[in-house]
Amino acid sequence: MKKSELYQHLNVQLDLAVEAHQMLRGESGEEIPGVLMNEQQLEHAKVTIITVETEEGVEAIGKPKGQYITIDAPEIRTNNYIVHEDITHVLADRLIELMNLKEDASILIVGLGNWNATPDALGPQVIDKTMVTRHLFKLSPDELKGQLRKISAIAPGVLGLTGIETAEIIKGLVEHVKPDLVIAIDALAASSLERIGTSIQLSDTGIHPGSGVGNRRAGITEETIGCKVIAIGLPTVVNAGIIAHDAVEGVFKEFVTSPQLYKLYKGIKPEVFSQIIDDVLSPFQGNLMVTPKEIDSLIKIVAKIIAGSLAISLHPGIDREDYERYLQ
Amino acid sequence: MKKSELYQHLNVQLDLAVEAHQMLRGESGEEIPGVLMNEQQLEHAKVTIITVETEEGVEAIGKPKGQYITIDAPEIRTNNYIVHEDITHVLADRLIELMNLKEDASILIVGLGNWNATPDALGPQVIDKTMVTRHLFKLSPDELKGQLRKISAIAPGVLGLTGIETAEIIKGLVEHVKPDLVIAIDALAASSLERIGTSIQLSDTGIHPGSGVGNRRAGITEETIGCKVIAIGLPTVVNAGIIAHDAVEGVFKEFVTSPQLYKLYKGIKPEVFSQIIDDVLSPFQGNLMVTPKEIDSLIKIVAKIIAGSLAISLHPGIDREDYERYLQ
Amino acid sequence: MKKSELYQHLNVQLDLAVEAHQMLRGESGEEIPGVLMNEQQLEHAKVTIITVETEEGVEAIGKPKGQYITIDAPEIRTNNYIVHEDITHVLADRLIELMNLKEDASILIVGLGNWNATPDALGPQVIDKTMVTRHLFKLSPDELKGQLRKISAIAPGVLGLTGIETAEIIKGLVEHVKPDLVIAIDALAASSLERIGTSIQLSDTGIHPGSGVGNRRAGITEETIGCKVIAIGLPTVVNAGIIAHDAVEGVFKEFVTSPQLYKLYKGIKPEVFSQIIDDVLSPFQGNLMVTPKEIDSLIKIVAKIIAGSLAISLHPGIDREDYERYLQ
Amino acid sequence: MKKSELYQHLNVQLDLAVEAHQMLRGESGEEIPGVLMNEQQLEHAKVTIITVETEEGVEAIGKPKGQYITIDAPEIRTNNYIVHEDITHVLADRLIELMNLKEDASILIVGLGNWNATPDALGPQVIDKTMVTRHLFKLSPDELKGQLRKISAIAPGVLGLTGIETAEIIKGLVEHVKPDLVIAIDALAASSLERIGTSIQLSDTGIHPGSGVGNRRAGITEETIGCKVIAIGLPTVVNAGIIAHDAVEGVFKEFVTSPQLYKLYKGIKPEVFSQIIDDVLSPFQGNLMVTPKEIDSLIKIVAKIIAGSLAISLHPGIDREDYERYLQ
Repeated sequence: MKKSELYQHLNVQLDLAVEAHQMLRGESGEEIPGVLMNEQQLEHAKVTIITVETEEGVEAIGKPKGQYITIDAPEIRTNNYIVHEDITHVLADRLIELMNLKEDASILIVGLGNWNATPDALGPQVIDKTMVTRHLFKLSPDELKGQLRKISAIAPGVLGLTGIETAEIIKGLVEHVKPDLVIAIDALAASSLERIGTSIQLSDTGIHPGSGVGNRRAGITEETIGCKVIAIGLPTVVNAGIIAHDAVEGVFKEFVTSPQLYKLYKGIKPEVFSQIIDDVLSPFQGNLMVTPKEIDSLIKIVAKIIAGSLAISLHPGIDREDYERYLQ
Repeated sequence: MKKSELYQHLNVQLDLAVEAHQMLRGESGEEIPGVLMNEQQLEHAKVTIITVETEEGVEAIGKPKGQYITIDAPEIRTNNYIVHEDITHVLADRLIELMNLKEDASILIVGLGNWNATPDALGPQVIDKTMVTRHLFKLSPDELKGQLRKISAIAPGVLGLTGIETAEIIKGLVEHVKPDLVIAIDALAASSLERIGTSIQLSDTGIHPGSGVGNRRAGITEETIGCKVIAIGLPTVVNAGIIAHDAVEGVFKEFVTSPQLYKLYKGIKPEVFSQIIDDVLSPFQGNLMVTPKEIDSLIKIVAKIIAGSLAISLHPGIDREDYERYLQ
Repeated sequence: MKKSELYQHLNVQLDLAVEAHQMLRGESGEEIPGVLMNEQQLEHAKVTIITVETEEGVEAIGKPKGQYITIDAPEIRTNNYIVHEDITHVLADRLIELMNLKEDASILIVGLGNWNATPDALGPQVIDKTMVTRHLFKLSPDELKGQLRKISAIAPGVLGLTGIETAEIIKGLVEHVKPDLVIAIDALAASSLERIGTSIQLSDTGIHPGSGVGNRRAGITEETIGCKVIAIGLPTVVNAGIIAHDAVEGVFKEFVTSPQLYKLYKGIKPEVFSQIIDDVLSPFQGNLMVTPKEIDSLIKIVAKIIAGSLAISLHPGIDREDYERYLQ
Repeated sequence: MKKSELYQHLNVQLDLAVEAHQMLRGESGEEIPGVLMNEQQLEHAKVTIITVETEEGVEAIGKPKGQYITIDAPEIRTNNYIVHEDITHVLADRLIELMNLKEDASILIVGLGNWNATPDALGPQVIDKTMVTRHLFKLSPDELKGQLRKISAIAPGVLGLTGIETAEIIKGLVEHVKPDLVIAIDALAASSLERIGTSIQLSDTGIHPGSGVGNRRAGITEETIGCKVIAIGLPTVVNAGIIAHDAVEGVFKEFVTSPQLYKLYKGIKPEVFSQIIDDVLSPFQGNLMVTPKEIDSLIKIVAKIIAGSLAISLHPGIDREDYERYLQ
């Protein structure tokens, strides 16, 4: 049984390109044509850039053409504020490069997710900490020019709260605000627990319907909303089916010594395995998430890191060392 | 000095048509051509309907053509839940008449105002208590038909939080959600303290820039957003300039017995008087609001009344006696 | 391998007496001396009463002497408000019996848990909806007598927010407020997913350190705080280790047909098994919770049910049919 | 009519010692025996220290013996973050001096006020931003020693939310937490609009029942709770009666040229004047507050300043320039 087949049966999609790439490479053991990977180890973070270059790559990895930058920083889980600042700077640098903003650009920041459900509240929390400036430009454009860029921001809520698809709301906003760039912040699902709260993914391809906490159903991409979209995501949960699978694999792999048994295990058909897991997860099945008890503090820390990196990368007048002053 | 002239100098507009009408009648002592008034005394509420019928009426009263229904219910300030239910029913009846909805209408409810500033938080609180249903119609339209109408709802925040004019946000929403009706809920300013938390105004003319708590600058009307708008408003503050004026008038009127003095007082020019008041209110001037300490509980009560009346009037399948079940 | 041994290794305790009882019975197949069980099937709920009567029973089941009433109502997960009201009535009836209050009793309601972490926010949400009355008795004692009882209420926050053990805070409160009864509301951990959001446990033995969401470390019992304590709990999560175990068991049980294999599985030592699970759950281990995506709405529904049942059972003057009026 | 007599009739007390002192000096024109005043002009703030030294002073000024330090910084109203940091440093320096803490002191920070009513929410907002550390000392006392002090923190809510006098709650806490010092943060009422959001008062005498937003009825002082109390207060409102009075005085003083008239005005008896004002403020009278529309942002700014000054002054290991890292 291939993991990718099981995931398909469990209806699990990989939100992180770096995990999709890993799974693919792990199974085939070969380079993936049309997909480049580049890694860089920094003091407190590992930066991995996956570039999907061709249609062949799109087909293989199941993600649109574009760049996917993952910053893995396990030290986010410590309370070391100096490390948090360093990661903020790393993220800011990547954002500056990826956004490539003209001086007078106008940016709409969208915090996706549900403020009532902690693991889904990353987006709204970043919005809470972000300074909006777009309305100030009508009062004193000359003073602000070259110092600040025009920022508008909204946390529109989720379908269950508004009755409206988030993509519809954002499309309407874009048509009126006419930003040069939309930055969408969202909580993701990972396939590995280690990534919860510590892997930040940037991409220039927008938000695609995935397995994330809130199951956004319609994508938020340049095609759907008519404006370039940069997505910033953080895994806050792992799908419970993956944990169930990993436990079974763990027992067979590490405990049972007989090669026959392991062969037996590998022979289980994905549809049978996923049926067993579905029974274990009844009555919630695919709607169960696994998340650490301290998820509220992890999200709080990363919301500050993301809001800080936005302050630095969006505003030429904000000093890299002083960004915390500008967080709300 | 006429009160209306002073208000003009103080930049105070009357959000309630019933107050604008009263001031006009008080000063002229005559019927206002093109404006009808109708009063009805119920057990726990007085209902006043002002109808602005002609351009002459618009000119005189400073409000667009349409109906303005005020429900005055001072007993809201008591903790009598039975009275609150009665007022909910009164409000529901007026809404049903005013909205005149077709069976399968789609309604977008907009909670204007700032959730971080208690006197401005009425709109967001009503949204919090409102059941949204629009997204359910894609799953089981037949079951819901005739029972519920399609409700979407949003509290978009204020200019200082989003950097975007609220009217722009709503216009974008209306273009995508395509509702038959927008209901906009907002906190208003009154000229009389007695009306705080106890006068509810319904109108079919939308929201116009007024002196309300949050100073919405662009109107939200059929003209600006392209969809019929019903506004529900509740005064939560009185402009501090009005209190200052009333105190001065109180002293001259009730205390000073000499007719000469009173004449002197009446001779003060509005621009001089308003300058004195501005000095007293420095450094905040027109941005000062007077509000009772218990404004948080008053707003909580009225948010429940409004949300209840919306549940009854919007959904044929919700029983008048059972609406509280459906409040979130 | 016995489940109970594995749970011990995984450091999992069963918060629900009904689950502890079930596991014990399941393993031994025999009556448990000193522990009585009584079941009653109602229209929308099954009520199970476990009574721990003797020291022998305490030893066996690992819970203090007293009554543990569980109301299982899977229909809570539906949006049927009429069913929710019925469950509210069932819960109120049990509370009235269990509390056995004198007419002028004073009750302190404590909402345990962290309002920033949705699965742990049940207690604070019940407090939000509860009408406090204790302070009103100083103003108009005669009017309220026989109608309302004296209610005080607090959501003290968790150790990570205050730096103070919750039990210390409550002990201090009890010494000054001197209530006749403390009612403590808390989010629990279940061993079965089906119970999430749908099993409500009442007990007259207080709160004991368990495996609940927030890991309250010091118990809140008559011994520790000097006042009778009734606990109301609702499972909102399952420990991730249990899901991992159940998945492994599921595969061996339902899939693998060979009896030898199943024997092999049963022969795995708990310490080995728990080590494998710990590796799978790394780096969070016992601090991982499994919870459904819709946990925010489930908690909202049950908070209303609990607050409603408290309104009915605490106040003689509140009608069973009208309790919703009194929810804040 | 003396202002002090009118205030007595209007039931207005002056929360700020600096205002009480000013009124006294203004009326008598003389030094107040037993009360010292010392002023210091800094770059962005004026610091005034009132010391009440003798019983005679207590009698005259109506405040207990002790120090009252007011930091007036009108620039708080600007969005200049560099100025905000400077004021944070000024406040921290005064706190260090006033608290005079031993190295291993334990401090309980209490945020008074109602989080649901913006002008009363200063205390809870400071608590939200404050890092608590007391519980960490059980895990790693040696690491933290000399770097951090033991901080516990709570926002207990107000009487209307809990049914319990705040002083009772704090007394209970102090008996169990046994701190060396309580710091109580509260929103105050000023008699001058200019002080709203810009005057911060520190005192070593605790909280006394005043005219502040929430009308705390029982004092929180060393006598009532058994522990030294330092109070930090910020005016967020002015009593509406004061505005009414100032408007009347403004008209008579600045407008009416005749000395006879002014004499007439000065001859109005306080009880008559206060009756007129009460009529104007009906039906809310003394429960009306005047507050600027932007009070939410002003409080947010000052909550950050206070939390920042606490971080610097409480923890030897926190650098004056880096305090923002430690704000939650």
